[in-house]
Amino acid sequence: MLTLAFESSAKAASVALLEDERLVCQAYQCSGLTHSRTLLPMAESMLQTAGISLSQIDRFAVACGPGSFTGIRIGVSAVKGLAWGAEKPCVGVSTLAAMAWNGAGAGGPVCPVMDARRSEVYNALFRVENGRPVRLCPDRAISLEKLAEEITALYEADRESPPVFLTGDGAAITASYLSERGIAFRLAPENLRWQTAWGVGMEAKDLPDSTPELLLPVYLRLSQAERERQAKMKE
Amino acid sequence: MLTLAFESSAKAASVALLEDERLVCQAYQCSGLTHSRTLLPMAESMLQTAGISLSQIDRFAVACGPGSFTGIRIGVSAVKGLAWGAEKPCVGVSTLAAMAWNGAGAGGPVCPVMDARRSEVYNALFRVENGRPVRLCPDRAISLEKLAEEITALYEADRESPPVFLTGDGAAITASYLSERGIAFRLAPENLRWQTAWGVGMEAKDLPDSTPELLLPVYLRLSQAERERQAKMKE
Repeated sequence: MLTLAFESSAKAASVALLEDERLVCQAYQCSGLTHSRTLLPMAESMLQTAGISLSQIDRFAVACGPGSFTGIRIGVSAVKGLAWGAEKPCVGVSTLAAMAWNGAGAGGPVCPVMDARRSEVYNALFRVENGRPVRLCPDRAISLEKLAEEITALYEADRESPPVFLTGDGAAITASYLSERGIAFRLAPENLRWQTAWGVGMEAKDLPDSTPELLLPVYLRLSQAERERQAKMKE
Repeated sequence: MLTLAFESSAKAASVALLEDERLVCQAYQCSGLTHSRTLLPMAESMLQTAGISLSQIDRFAVACGPGSFTGIRIGVSAVKGLAWGAEKPCVGVSTLAAMAWNGAGAGGPVCPVMDARRSEVYNALFRVENGRPVRLCPDRAISLEKLAEEITALYEADRESPPVFLTGDGAAITASYLSERGIAFRLAPENLRWQTAWGVGMEAKDLPDSTPELLLPVYLRLSQAERERQAKMKE
């Protein structure tokens, strides 16, 4: 089964083609250009170089959030359009679950963290079992203070546990927070630090098919515009 | 400094653009198409989508071998041409040293292995220190039997050592060889199993500039044609 996967939930954008669990090709970019300009051209030139046509794709996958509101909307909209146009199924996955695949080779607990501003990170915790991430808690926006408490509790529950593997654009701030408090961690190297569409494809593999109408962004929080509107209505 | 790095020493091919140690973009492909057809178009479309022109590149890097004779020649020739044409420096790196970067996040000893046929693998051993691979021995073609002996000796010298991290197209055969003999190992997941141009760029970073004339493939062994010629001359 050929899956075309998209990731655009933060600064980096990527597209990957997977044949079952094999990575056939991937295009990755973290150049600062807007995803609306780069995402589909990346997919088009990637497939062209690999000699694959869009009609050969069996299924589309996308990271639905949490993450950058604009980034998620661009990815979800692109996949809605592609799946609709090609009359093929699509599937949305958690951005954080897809990121957890970055820790599959490192083993131990994996801690994807995205900078959610306002002193919080988007996060969930995972454990690697048989080379696959297994979820330990739901996706949430959480303060670094609370996250540090959870990591400490995790080490207390398992004294043999390797340090958490930090990945994502919130990894550096989380690392410095943990470091100041003497809490152990491993920081993902550059090649495993950012979201990739490969992780999206891997996470999508065992999920049921969905349809373009049912594919929706998952924000976890209200957008700034909505927060301001609600505040205004309370006045 | 912008480095454009190329990897085509085995079945996979990739091109990466690094700004110092940051990965700006990467195109990866393991589709079975010949590198002579895919490598330069991948570079061209990758740079185009990232809005970077060839004239902005400061330096070209390439994996010089060991590996597939044809694959290495294609990569080295492409970089010779680009560096010559653009009048920019280039640098060649060991394929195995570049692959060792795949293990940077896993820590412990890293063991890149490429299937060299004739019951041998191309290999070198590395140890990760401060997130960077440090070489423990030169690149060589080695039998699985001898490699297994070296890995056992490594565990005997350091009883606390994590198992070796196996990466490359020889990882699966090495894993099954070690497994049959009860020798511990960690097998790289799909996203860290194959060569990438990112590793080439990272490895190139601290090496001195070279010139197109000095850039040469490193085969470690004679080609089949040369072996047959020598055998014939001995008759």
